[in-house]
Amino acid sequence: MQKDFELTILGTGSATPTRLRHPSAQYLRMEGDYFLIDCGEGTQNQILKFGLRFNKIKYILISHLHGDHYFGLPGMITTMSLQGRLEPLTIIGPSELWPIIELILKSGNTTLTYEINFIPTDAEQPALVLEKAQWEIRSFPLRHRIKCTGFLIKEKGPLRKISKQACEKLGVPFSFYDSLKAGANYIAPDGKTYENALLTLPAAPNRTYAYVSDSIYDEGILPHISGADWLYHEATFKHDLLDRALITFHTTSLQAGEIAARAQVKNLILGHFSARYADVGPLLEEAKTAFPNSRIAIEGELIQL
Amino acid sequence: MQKDFELTILGTGSATPTRLRHPSAQYLRMEGDYFLIDCGEGTQNQILKFGLRFNKIKYILISHLHGDHYFGLPGMITTMSLQGRLEPLTIIGPSELWPIIELILKSGNTTLTYEINFIPTDAEQPALVLEKAQWEIRSFPLRHRIKCTGFLIKEKGPLRKISKQACEKLGVPFSFYDSLKAGANYIAPDGKTYENALLTLPAAPNRTYAYVSDSIYDEGILPHISGADWLYHEATFKHDLLDRALITFHTTSLQAGEIAARAQVKNLILGHFSARYADVGPLLEEAKTAFPNSRIAIEGELIQL
Repeated sequence: MQKDFELTILGTGSATPTRLRHPSAQYLRMEGDYFLIDCGEGTQNQILKFGLRFNKIKYILISHLHGDHYFGLPGMITTMSLQGRLEPLTIIGPSELWPIIELILKSGNTTLTYEINFIPTDAEQPALVLEKAQWEIRSFPLRHRIKCTGFLIKEKGPLRKISKQACEKLGVPFSFYDSLKAGANYIAPDGKTYENALLTLPAAPNRTYAYVSDSIYDEGILPHISGADWLYHEATFKHDLLDRALITFHTTSLQAGEIAARAQVKNLILGHFSARYADVGPLLEEAKTAFPNSRIAIEGELIQL
Repeated sequence: MQKDFELTILGTGSATPTRLRHPSAQYLRMEGDYFLIDCGEGTQNQILKFGLRFNKIKYILISHLHGDHYFGLPGMITTMSLQGRLEPLTIIGPSELWPIIELILKSGNTTLTYEINFIPTDAEQPALVLEKAQWEIRSFPLRHRIKCTGFLIKEKGPLRKISKQACEKLGVPFSFYDSLKAGANYIAPDGKTYENALLTLPAAPNRTYAYVSDSIYDEGILPHISGADWLYHEATFKHDLLDRALITFHTTSLQAGEIAARAQVKNLILGHFSARYADVGPLLEEAKTAFPNSRIAIEGELIQL
């Protein structure tokens, strides 16, 4: 059985606010852990609107310090405290973020009810940001107007699943199950060796979600997102505004499709739409010409990854 | 004819976000000038929702540095710049606000298209913050958990209006009209003195709006708001939660009514309601027992002051 790995889109807009869209934010549930990826102004309201829970969130990932990606963070942090949160919160983002949070808390004479662990990202080179038994988060540099990173969120799991029937028949002790899952052969008390493949089945493949918030078209990211099951990629403009995309270090929807195709990902989600587009249908059509398995991020939508 | 003096309520909630209310923010139009008073998270969206204009706003007043009163400010400032604003913006608030704005702009490598004039408030004593020909803004200390000020916004105008009929009959030169408005008598070319009251009519009285954002019940503010045409006063709790009001340095709705009665204001607007109240009708009823001319702040409502 596949484990939980699902994404709720909270915001699909870019810097200029519109009545149609909220700025960037996503709510991710993976193996019982909850993540917020970027946190534009009003993310709190989106969480309330879609019936999600503040205090489930254990990790907040911030890609960069443009307001539409983090101006909702100070409010989120204080709301968690008003709700009496006790569990520590981990915030992952540019090193310049921490002094901002500290100054805001100090200026409001605010003592939080919980601790924050801050993990600075490195915008110069790819890095393993955080690793748990069940998953890992990697960051990689994005080319934008300021320091910015993408994130690769990856399930980890056993290489193999136990074949209960085969193991019970041979009397393999439970204590050896973890070694079997990791790929070891079994040596029975009588000295006979049983190949791992006889005692196990292939595990469900580990899924990966790649998040590319704000970036100019950049093939430099391909090694980091290659083969991902899901790729979220910004598509601020339609390709007829390529000039504008180049000046502002953003991507067109056609280019986002091209990145997805070159990276050989399985699915592409488009977002971060310029306020000028009331209808983003044409952006989707354009991306599909390069990568058919494209879709539009829709606020409130739950995507099973 | 009365001049423009009207208020649009943008937020009526307190610190904990709810699906029903937005945090504190008000949009004030006075004599062709536009003010924003406090700017909680999501104020931008409220401005869009109610069809108001960002770039009309010339002055932003911030009472104190709790998030529900200013976490929408960084977004507001950057949106004005994205819209290409050229006119300078004046921000009035606690001195600790300016370093926060500077750090956020610097961290985002943001150069605004316009200048900000920052005027720090004094939380220790009443002060004249800003004075123009047509109005003035005064601040006065509020007793809250951190440095906090209320604001008194006051129309200024001529003492008297010209009686056109009387002036034309006597041939009073136009150049003397301003002196007449200010109360001077007129001495005709033949040396004869005409009393001001013969040539003028009483001007419409200058109106005042007092804003008391977050405060424990405090009779110390009475001299500053005495006789105001309109008083906005926080009423976070119903009086059965007086204990909670005292601990958190907030006011009950009954106490807000009592302040209005003692200050002999003409109208009271209640706001900053705790998230626990879905229905604030009982808070209004309670305030009315002390001050009948009370009303509830309603988001989107336009109040002619």
